[in-house]
Amino acid sequence: MNEIKVFCPATIANLNCGFDVMGLCLEGIGDEMIFRKVPEKGIRITEITGADLPYETDKNVAGVAALALIKSANPDFGFEIEIHKKIKAGSGIGSSSASAAGAVYGINELLGRPFSKHELVAFAMKGEVIASGSEHADNVAPCLLGGFTLVRGYNPLDVIKIESPSEIYAVVLHPHIEVKTADSRAVLPSSIPLKTAITQWGNLGGLIAGLYSKDYELIGRSLQDVVAEPFRKSLIPNFDLVKNSALDNGALGAGISGAGPSVFALCKGQSSAERVAYAMSSSYLDTGIPFDIHLSKVNDEGTKTIDY
Amino acid sequence: MNEIKVFCPATIANLNCGFDVMGLCLEGIGDEMIFRKVPEKGIRITEITGADLPYETDKNVAGVAALALIKSANPDFGFEIEIHKKIKAGSGIGSSSASAAGAVYGINELLGRPFSKHELVAFAMKGEVIASGSEHADNVAPCLLGGFTLVRGYNPLDVIKIESPSEIYAVVLHPHIEVKTADSRAVLPSSIPLKTAITQWGNLGGLIAGLYSKDYELIGRSLQDVVAEPFRKSLIPNFDLVKNSALDNGALGAGISGAGPSVFALCKGQSSAERVAYAMSSSYLDTGIPFDIHLSKVNDEGTKTIDY
Repeated sequence: MNEIKVFCPATIANLNCGFDVMGLCLEGIGDEMIFRKVPEKGIRITEITGADLPYETDKNVAGVAALALIKSANPDFGFEIEIHKKIKAGSGIGSSSASAAGAVYGINELLGRPFSKHELVAFAMKGEVIASGSEHADNVAPCLLGGFTLVRGYNPLDVIKIESPSEIYAVVLHPHIEVKTADSRAVLPSSIPLKTAITQWGNLGGLIAGLYSKDYELIGRSLQDVVAEPFRKSLIPNFDLVKNSALDNGALGAGISGAGPSVFALCKGQSSAERVAYAMSSSYLDTGIPFDIHLSKVNDEGTKTIDY
Repeated sequence: MNEIKVFCPATIANLNCGFDVMGLCLEGIGDEMIFRKVPEKGIRITEITGADLPYETDKNVAGVAALALIKSANPDFGFEIEIHKKIKAGSGIGSSSASAAGAVYGINELLGRPFSKHELVAFAMKGEVIASGSEHADNVAPCLLGGFTLVRGYNPLDVIKIESPSEIYAVVLHPHIEVKTADSRAVLPSSIPLKTAITQWGNLGGLIAGLYSKDYELIGRSLQDVVAEPFRKSLIPNFDLVKNSALDNGALGAGISGAGPSVFALCKGQSSAERVAYAMSSSYLDTGIPFDIHLSKVNDEGTKTIDY
């Protein structure tokens, strides 16, 4: 195998009560990347479409993640990478993470899988530093592993795939405005009331229990965010409007995807998701802000090899 | 059925990362209570052994919980209650909660079970106010329901029983010193760093995932407390010594039971628990402080009717 094409999906991080630790993987929306073994050592990015990103390996998210992997695997050949972005940068559904995850997945496949997907998360995190200034796993973990993931902790890195029911669909509305991750971080307080923290971890416990026990009602009751949303929602015009339109039309829960500006809703079943998607779109049309909307089943597979 | 005898077990609240939300139910250690239907309406406490507690119904934890229940059920007869305490007051393993849970369980049985065990939690919480000044469910929930429980939230009350593996044993070492719950609350800060809160809820997520997936290693890695233990451990002489003796001898995790002073360890299997119990006892003997120690499987049944 000397050449493969890879699908690296979009992801929703945080999921309200799971701020900085939870994420889930989407189906149907994601980037494509092509990997080619070449005799010359190292990583070269040969083509980028769909986004204006640097070709210099050490300045590119995919390049840096790939370099971290080959530094560890040390093959006596090299790789060319093509990056075909479909996920918009800055949309809050893991655009940079898809590039980082795709890079380490593709190269690991061409190396004959020296690492498990779980092990690849640590390499992909190195790529995230280029995009966000810090190593974090809440998007790269679900992108690689699929489904719902929990980052239990970082010292050492401990990523857990959470068993989940099969009928969860996500709707994501992406308003075409820019919210810089740095700004989205800056609005958060450095300390929170202990009572607020207890409320948040009660809900996170409920979310995980609901996923394992396939209790959609419990999942819905748990999808609350008393930590980040109260501060971040002011960065997203008409956030309450679109969130409430989702909840009023049967969504299990709704909130900010990652650091925003995308707004997500989780639903039970496709027809519920379609109704919610329509309601969210209709409410947002009134704002006059351009947006796009995605409807996707939760993708249990994660990053994968696809046919040409 | 005009008279029953009830076993109301001891419980461990908090479980490190689950501060104020998690708890588990013990086997083998618990109070006994006797309930008798009588023609006169109301609740009378006719006998108390094992503790110096008030006989006035409205000043007694069991009495207040029982009153809350009959206020709702409104039977045209009354009840006599005998309370035989085995769990020492102030030990940190849910002594008052056992009385509150036992009271509502026993009366509900004699009424023909108008309420589910889940519904009884709210009545039992009323009794807790007498003991601790606030309505909380993290001990009464596991005492009634058995196993591991999560209090997702209070508005409205939402208690979830968490599926757990069968081979978890708890060891509890109770040093004979007094730690007042009020003092134990007072040492905690009212706010905590957001980073600390994230660490705690990552671990709580890991604990719940580990329980559902029967992953003992994950349960162990998750049993960390970065919120309460750093402040509370100074109230318990030689806490680090006894905790480390548990961890060094194979415990999955160890920490403060409830508000202390009891120290608990969770273990996989009985022989591991026996080794840990021996190690904890040996280390604490050196301190010269009297103590007792309990070894118990997790009790999946909770409060129950027993034979005379």
